[in-house]
Amino acid sequence: MRHSAAHVMAQAVLSIFPEAKLGIGPAIEDGFYYDFDLPRSLTPDDLPAIEAKMKEIVALDLPFEREEVDREEARRLLAGQPYKLELIDELADEKVSLYRQGPFVDLCRGPHLGSTGELGAFKLVNIAGAYWRGDEHRPMLQRIYGVAFDTEAALQEHLHRLAEAAKRDHRRLGRELDLFSIHNEAGPGLVHWHPKGALVRRLIEDFWKDEHIKRGYDIVYTPHIAKVDLWRTSGHWDFYRDYLYSPMEVEGQDYIIKPMNCLGHILMYKTRLRSYRELPLRWAELGTVYRYERSGVLHGLARVRGFTQDDAHIFCRPDQLEEEVAGVLELARFMMQAFGFNEYEVFLSTRPEKYAGSAEVWEDSTRTLERALDRLHMAYSIDPGEGVFYGPKIDISLKDALGRSWQGPTTQVDFNLPQRFDVTYIGEDGKEHQVVMVHRAVLGSLERFVACLLEHYAGAFPVWLAPVQAVVIPIADRHLDYARQVAAELSGQGLRIQVDARAERMNLKIREAQLQKVPYMLVVGDNEAAASTVSLRLRNNQNLGTHSLASFKAMFESALEARE
Amino acid sequence: MRHSAAHVMAQAVLSIFPEAKLGIGPAIEDGFYYDFDLPRSLTPDDLPAIEAKMKEIVALDLPFEREEVDREEARRLLAGQPYKLELIDELADEKVSLYRQGPFVDLCRGPHLGSTGELGAFKLVNIAGAYWRGDEHRPMLQRIYGVAFDTEAALQEHLHRLAEAAKRDHRRLGRELDLFSIHNEAGPGLVHWHPKGALVRRLIEDFWKDEHIKRGYDIVYTPHIAKVDLWRTSGHWDFYRDYLYSPMEVEGQDYIIKPMNCLGHILMYKTRLRSYRELPLRWAELGTVYRYERSGVLHGLARVRGFTQDDAHIFCRPDQLEEEVAGVLELARFMMQAFGFNEYEVFLSTRPEKYAGSAEVWEDSTRTLERALDRLHMAYSIDPGEGVFYGPKIDISLKDALGRSWQGPTTQVDFNLPQRFDVTYIGEDGKEHQVVMVHRAVLGSLERFVACLLEHYAGAFPVWLAPVQAVVIPIADRHLDYARQVAAELSGQGLRIQVDARAERMNLKIREAQLQKVPYMLVVGDNEAAASTVSLRLRNNQNLGTHSLASFKAMFESALEARE
Repeated sequence: MRHSAAHVMAQAVLSIFPEAKLGIGPAIEDGFYYDFDLPRSLTPDDLPAIEAKMKEIVALDLPFEREEVDREEARRLLAGQPYKLELIDELADEKVSLYRQGPFVDLCRGPHLGSTGELGAFKLVNIAGAYWRGDEHRPMLQRIYGVAFDTEAALQEHLHRLAEAAKRDHRRLGRELDLFSIHNEAGPGLVHWHPKGALVRRLIEDFWKDEHIKRGYDIVYTPHIAKVDLWRTSGHWDFYRDYLYSPMEVEGQDYIIKPMNCLGHILMYKTRLRSYRELPLRWAELGTVYRYERSGVLHGLARVRGFTQDDAHIFCRPDQLEEEVAGVLELARFMMQAFGFNEYEVFLSTRPEKYAGSAEVWEDSTRTLERALDRLHMAYSIDPGEGVFYGPKIDISLKDALGRSWQGPTTQVDFNLPQRFDVTYIGEDGKEHQVVMVHRAVLGSLERFVACLLEHYAGAFPVWLAPVQAVVIPIADRHLDYARQVAAELSGQGLRIQVDARAERMNLKIREAQLQKVPYMLVVGDNEAAASTVSLRLRNNQNLGTHSLASFKAMFESALEARE
Repeated sequence: MRHSAAHVMAQAVLSIFPEAKLGIGPAIEDGFYYDFDLPRSLTPDDLPAIEAKMKEIVALDLPFEREEVDREEARRLLAGQPYKLELIDELADEKVSLYRQGPFVDLCRGPHLGSTGELGAFKLVNIAGAYWRGDEHRPMLQRIYGVAFDTEAALQEHLHRLAEAAKRDHRRLGRELDLFSIHNEAGPGLVHWHPKGALVRRLIEDFWKDEHIKRGYDIVYTPHIAKVDLWRTSGHWDFYRDYLYSPMEVEGQDYIIKPMNCLGHILMYKTRLRSYRELPLRWAELGTVYRYERSGVLHGLARVRGFTQDDAHIFCRPDQLEEEVAGVLELARFMMQAFGFNEYEVFLSTRPEKYAGSAEVWEDSTRTLERALDRLHMAYSIDPGEGVFYGPKIDISLKDALGRSWQGPTTQVDFNLPQRFDVTYIGEDGKEHQVVMVHRAVLGSLERFVACLLEHYAGAFPVWLAPVQAVVIPIADRHLDYARQVAAELSGQGLRIQVDARAERMNLKIREAQLQKVPYMLVVGDNEAAASTVSLRLRNNQNLGTHSLASFKAMFESALEARE
């Protein structure tokens, strides 16, 4: 159906621009596109006219008819279409499949609907430039994107979701809420956290640290650069070269900026003999790492070149692995819930074709991961052969408020590094044994996690994470003193509260606080000042009436507790 | 006197090793040295014999006699001494000054004591290798170091201070207390913070953040790499090239690892127009920066290649500078006192020969810094011409428990960067004005500050910073349950407490906890378990007798409050 919609659009465009040259027009997820070489640049204002023409074609209920002709006949039928002729020349078969609806003929393998009247609900949504055959040395065509669904209701829901996603775009929210910036002068993919964004990040980090310490983790710090030789030993220099930054030379030695934190932890582990009694060691680091990504794939906070992993490495004995993995999964689940993600999917990735360690050890530890998952009654799917070469892993993907998936917690067993770096402990038997190492992150990276939170909450962070939790808004200048008194009292009790003292109208101040997604607006005028109360309004514009400070404080505390 | 001691030592060495060839032997701070070419390597065991011989020479009370001879005579007198002959050949004067005591003659300008009997108290302390004339292509001589003072008491005090300093060496304490490590595999000067060291660092950081937020600072984060072009614009690429790491190339652009945090803050400042009403902005960052230092000068945590500055930049109007600088000085003083540094020296550095900005603006802002210092009644000295090229500055140097100076807080006004990056605000007059920028750090770097704390406290951190605050020591295995109960209760109340459950003797456990500088040892046996008490001992081995948990807790809390 979506492919048929593309043909209908092409017919409509040709009837408006008879000189149009057609590229290709496939179906894509949720819709379709078609590429055109046109005498002028299209603007969004052109789309309604094309849509109207498409509706006329639908009303005509023209049948889609397939024809098989020989090359010569095809070349004759598509004579004015150079891109089509180029495609015909490259076809291997003698016979060429064409589809025709009314006067419109296209080179096409099909299949299609019976007739244009069967087309569902559609809408043209976007225009973009696209090189012919994706080759930047070929002409730039204009691509029109459309979406199509069986019913008008499904189309409307999809358009609503698109609009929601655009409103929730974390790059836009990051700018509007003054949370972060990325600068071409410093380099793409490198995040600068502004005061409010940094505050959100710090609240997450502090919460994260507390929860880790409660669970027997120690926090460590390691440097951001190290000699290349370390990464040669680890194998990263060979396996992940494309993601590594080029070396810098110091006194004849090559150093690189670290792409991960594990090696520093291994060096610290090896500073002395470790006894089986000391294990497990759980070392966590909010470690900022740098990996190369093509500038074309960078995307706000979600895909960057420098990111802070909420990393930890667990050094344990083989008999401790199940308990440790279960602990990680429990922590991951706790974290997801704490941040409002109640839906997620769990994947267990098993041995790939190329792997380190023995098949038997893989089998054992995969079973161990399964037992840990079962212990927590976590439903999971198997991703066969999708483990990293160094060990099996469990990945969890979060579902946000729009049902979109985000990469979440990961837990990876590693047989490779303990062997390459000879990471051992002295067992109860007095002999050296190789430790098992677990790499894990429960948020992934602070950058991507904040992107996900922003889009999940559409910027309206729960009270505990809101950079500004309340704004006091005096109705007139004479209420400013009382406003400041309210703010001082609540600020002394730990609220992040501001007074909007500008000489602007109350309604504008309320509107702006709402746009800034501040959870509470405390409006104060004569009545409030006289009665020592505040008039309470929420960011969804709900008016909660008059409250004493104590009553507001209680409401605030309960939202804080509930992480609402 | 110290120089005379060097001559006496040379005479003593010659009388023990008649074949010794003499290098040079100057006086240095607190003492003297002399370089010798000897038939065998000296060991510390040789020093007492040389000292004994020196004492004999002192007892002989030989007069120091100056002679002036011509070159030929000097060459004859020092015929067996090739290094001396080399020096004579290079002398410009025809006449050569010699000093003689008894049979010993040395090439020397003097002056000297009247006789060897006037020599004060001395001691030989060290042997080291030293290339002749510091040239690694010339022979390696053996250097004997001695210290000398007017009185035996002064000598003893100095030796005590040396021994104290050795005991307090933060590199040694860092190893013994398992706080940090530096690895040749990763690179010299790059610090890996082990769990306990990282905990101390984190406590400092958290305290630092809280105190900054109280004072109206915002915490921000910026990336560790940026395009070289930024550092070209700032001037660092030209002025500080020797300290910068070599560039890494990304998609045809050169990036470097950041040597300072300022430029990221400037980029964030410039993301929008700033009004005079918004100022001052105080942006603080615990930013890890990397600067090249020769491996030869690296020293534990005190001199490193990567360090975390407790950095902040204040963007303000000229009329706000005094208030802002006073605020920084107040914070600096508060921080020094909080960490137990009650003695410090303050230096105001004024305009150097080469400078940015106008002499008038320099004059103005130097006066402003003086007024800020006066406001806080801080005594200071002027370091004329020692300002950095971009503005005047105030440096504070801390005195540690041994009276040694450590680089402490710094506050620097900057006229250069606001101009180079065109950092402005819209004034009340609606026009653009250049901001004044202040760089400041109140601890300096976390690395050096922790080195300083370690040496100041000889590793015995005050209770609030101690990584482990208390150890519960059961007298016998049957007291283990009660020990765990005590630990659980106190740990629930926020103490960092451990149980030493090893099958070792109580005295050994107490000794080890003391070596680990744990503030409190809670010994529990039958009596304590029966009465729900603990027997309390301090790390200085003071026995505080039996206490209820509540009584111990009160004592602990008051030490915590007092930051003792």
